[in-house]
Amino acid sequence: MSLVVAMVLAITSSFAQTAPAEIKEDFKPSSLNQPGQEYPQVNSQGYVRFRIVAPSADSVKVSLGKGGTRLSKSPDGSWTGTTAAAVDEGFHYHNINIDGGKFNDPGTKNYYGSVRWESGIEIPAHDQDFYALTNVPHGNVQQVLFPSPSTGTSRRAFVYTPPGYDKKTSKRYPVLYLQHGWGEDETAWSNQGHANLIMDNLIAENKVEPFIIVMTYGMTNEMRFGAGLRNFKIDTFQTVLVDELIPYIDANFRTVAKPSDRAMAGLSMGGMETHTITLNKPDVFAYYGLLSGGVYTPDELKDKTKPKLVFMSCGSKERPEGVKNAATALQGAGYNAVSYVSENTAHEFQTWRRSLYEMAPMLFKK
Amino acid sequence: MSLVVAMVLAITSSFAQTAPAEIKEDFKPSSLNQPGQEYPQVNSQGYVRFRIVAPSADSVKVSLGKGGTRLSKSPDGSWTGTTAAAVDEGFHYHNINIDGGKFNDPGTKNYYGSVRWESGIEIPAHDQDFYALTNVPHGNVQQVLFPSPSTGTSRRAFVYTPPGYDKKTSKRYPVLYLQHGWGEDETAWSNQGHANLIMDNLIAENKVEPFIIVMTYGMTNEMRFGAGLRNFKIDTFQTVLVDELIPYIDANFRTVAKPSDRAMAGLSMGGMETHTITLNKPDVFAYYGLLSGGVYTPDELKDKTKPKLVFMSCGSKERPEGVKNAATALQGAGYNAVSYVSENTAHEFQTWRRSLYEMAPMLFKK
Repeated sequence: MSLVVAMVLAITSSFAQTAPAEIKEDFKPSSLNQPGQEYPQVNSQGYVRFRIVAPSADSVKVSLGKGGTRLSKSPDGSWTGTTAAAVDEGFHYHNINIDGGKFNDPGTKNYYGSVRWESGIEIPAHDQDFYALTNVPHGNVQQVLFPSPSTGTSRRAFVYTPPGYDKKTSKRYPVLYLQHGWGEDETAWSNQGHANLIMDNLIAENKVEPFIIVMTYGMTNEMRFGAGLRNFKIDTFQTVLVDELIPYIDANFRTVAKPSDRAMAGLSMGGMETHTITLNKPDVFAYYGLLSGGVYTPDELKDKTKPKLVFMSCGSKERPEGVKNAATALQGAGYNAVSYVSENTAHEFQTWRRSLYEMAPMLFKK
Repeated sequence: MSLVVAMVLAITSSFAQTAPAEIKEDFKPSSLNQPGQEYPQVNSQGYVRFRIVAPSADSVKVSLGKGGTRLSKSPDGSWTGTTAAAVDEGFHYHNINIDGGKFNDPGTKNYYGSVRWESGIEIPAHDQDFYALTNVPHGNVQQVLFPSPSTGTSRRAFVYTPPGYDKKTSKRYPVLYLQHGWGEDETAWSNQGHANLIMDNLIAENKVEPFIIVMTYGMTNEMRFGAGLRNFKIDTFQTVLVDELIPYIDANFRTVAKPSDRAMAGLSMGGMETHTITLNKPDVFAYYGLLSGGVYTPDELKDKTKPKLVFMSCGSKERPEGVKNAATALQGAGYNAVSYVSENTAHEFQTWRRSLYEMAPMLFKK
C-alpha cells in the first residue's frame, strides 16, 4: 500500500527541463476555455499565460507552474502572468488563489479532480490527433443510473458504445471497466481522457476490436474527505462493481457476458482498485490494466486463473523502471505482460490517454 | 421580437413576498454542493447562507438576492452572509464578486448559463418529488456527436431514451426536440432541468406515452457574444436541427420518423426558436411547446398544417395573462391550445421543470 500512497501523493514534475528560452509571443486561447474566453492562453512552446480580473485584489496566484505562478496587476485592473517554464503536453488542472481563497479560473471549463471541480488547461501535444474530434463515425457516451442495493442508492455510470452499436442489433461486445483516479469521478475518462474519441479513432483505423467501456465512481465515502488512501477498503466498491454494475450492464447492453470478454483497468487509485479486485476476483476479468497504478508480481498471480493480458504503464517522469521490471518478471513466469512508458509526461492525463491508446488494441484479441 | 427580447432580459423577481420574519437556524448544505462542501446552505424558509474563504479580500458579494448579498468578514478569514429574503423554490444561478472580479462559488457544482459556467443552488420545493431521483426504472441520457456539414463540425446532442429502450428492440418511439434558453447549452435540460428524471417518474406512474427527448445547442455564433437576440437569425440553427439532426436521429434511433410523432418545445429563447421554426416548417412537427417563450396567434397558424397541440406556459411572476389569453384565442379559432402557469415562480428552471411535467402527458396521444 505504501508504494501506492507514495505514488498518488508524489509531487510530479510537469515541466519540461528546457533551459530558459525566449518566450514566443504566439499565445492562443486554450482549447478548454469557456466559449468566447480569451484566457488562459498557451504558446507554441507550452508556456501558459493567465489573466484574471479582480481590480481590488491584493494578490493573485495560479497553482500551475513549479511553486505556482504569481500574477501582476495591470493598470486596467486585471492580473496577468506567464508560467516560468514550459508545461508538459496534455491536460493539467489548476486553480486561482485570490487574497487567500481558492477559486476556479473564470476563463476555463471545469473538470472534477482533487475532490473538487478544478479548472483545466490543455497544452497541445505533438500526438494529439489520436484523441482529436475528427470526422469519423462516433460512438455514444450514455449516462446510466443503476440500482445499488448495497449502498441504498441509484448510482451513475457512463457507458461508451462503439459506432454502429445501435444498428448491429445481433452483435455482442466485450466490455472494459475503466476507473478514474483519486479525487476524480466517473466523468474523468470522457472529459479529461477523451476515452470515447480515442476509441472512435482506433476503430476508424481498424486498429481495435470494438468494445464497450463502462466508467463508474470508485471512491467510497470513507476515503473521500481526509481519511486518505491508507484507510482504503475495497469491499464497498468491489460489491458495487462486481455484484451490481456488471450484472446490470450484462442485462441492459449487448455484451459478451463472460470473463474472457471482460477487462478491468484504472489510472492511479483506479489501478490500485483494479489490482485488488482482479486478485480478489480472478474469475471475473481476463485482461488487467494498471495505468500509473502499480504492478503485479508473479507471486500475486500464481495459483489463480491466468489473465490473458497484464498491461502496466506510467509516464517517463514517474518510475518507468517499475513497470518495465514488473513486465519482465511476469514474462519470465510465463505471463503475457506488457509495459508502456509515455515519454516526457508525469502522473497526468496525457500519460493515461496514451496508455489507453496503447492498451486498447491488445484487448479481446481472438 | 421586442416582446421576446424584453422577456429574456427582464429582471424577474425570484424572491418570496413575505414580510421580514425571524430566520430559522435550520440551514443545511444545498443539494447542488460539491461533495463534502458545507456551504452554501438553505434553510426551511428558503433563505440562503453563503461562506467564502478569502482572508485578504476587501469585499465579497454574491449575485443572488435582490441587489445581491454582501458578505461580512469573520475573524477566521471567511466571509459569510444570508440573503435578505427567502428565495423562490427551485434552481438558481449565482456567482461571487471578490474585489471586483467575478468567480464561481467553490462550494457548488457548475451549470452552464449566461454564456458561462455558473454556480448553482437548489431551494427544496414542495413538489420536488416529480423530478427526484427515485427507485424507478431509469432511462439513459447519451451524448451523440452528429455530422453537421452546414457548420463544418461534429455537433453534440444529448438523447434521452426511456427505460426499456434497449430491450424492446421492435418498438419505435416519438421524439421531442427540446431547447434550452439564452446563454445555456445542451446540458441544461438534463443538469438544471432534470428532464430525464421527470420522464422516468412520469413513465413509472404510467402518466405518459414513453418518448425520446433530443437536446442540442441552439445558439449560433453570431448571437453568442454581445450581438444579442435582436440580431438573431434562425437560419443556421434551423438547418442544423431540421436538415441534419432530425435525419441523424431518425437514422440512428428507433423513432417513428413522421411529423405526427415529432414535437418541438423550448424555454425562453428556445421557445422563440420553436415558434419561428414551427412556423417556417409547419410540416415537420405536430406538437409545439413554448415555455416562458412567447405565444402563437391564430393568424400565425392559419393556412398551415394544423398542430395537434399548442402548449404555452410561464411562471406566475412572469406575464401569466399572456399565455392564458393566447390559449383562449387559439381555442376560439379551433386549435387544441393549453396554457399552464407555474405558481410562485419566475423566469427560472422550476417553471420549466413543471412545464415539462405538465406538457409531457399531452404529447403523442393516440
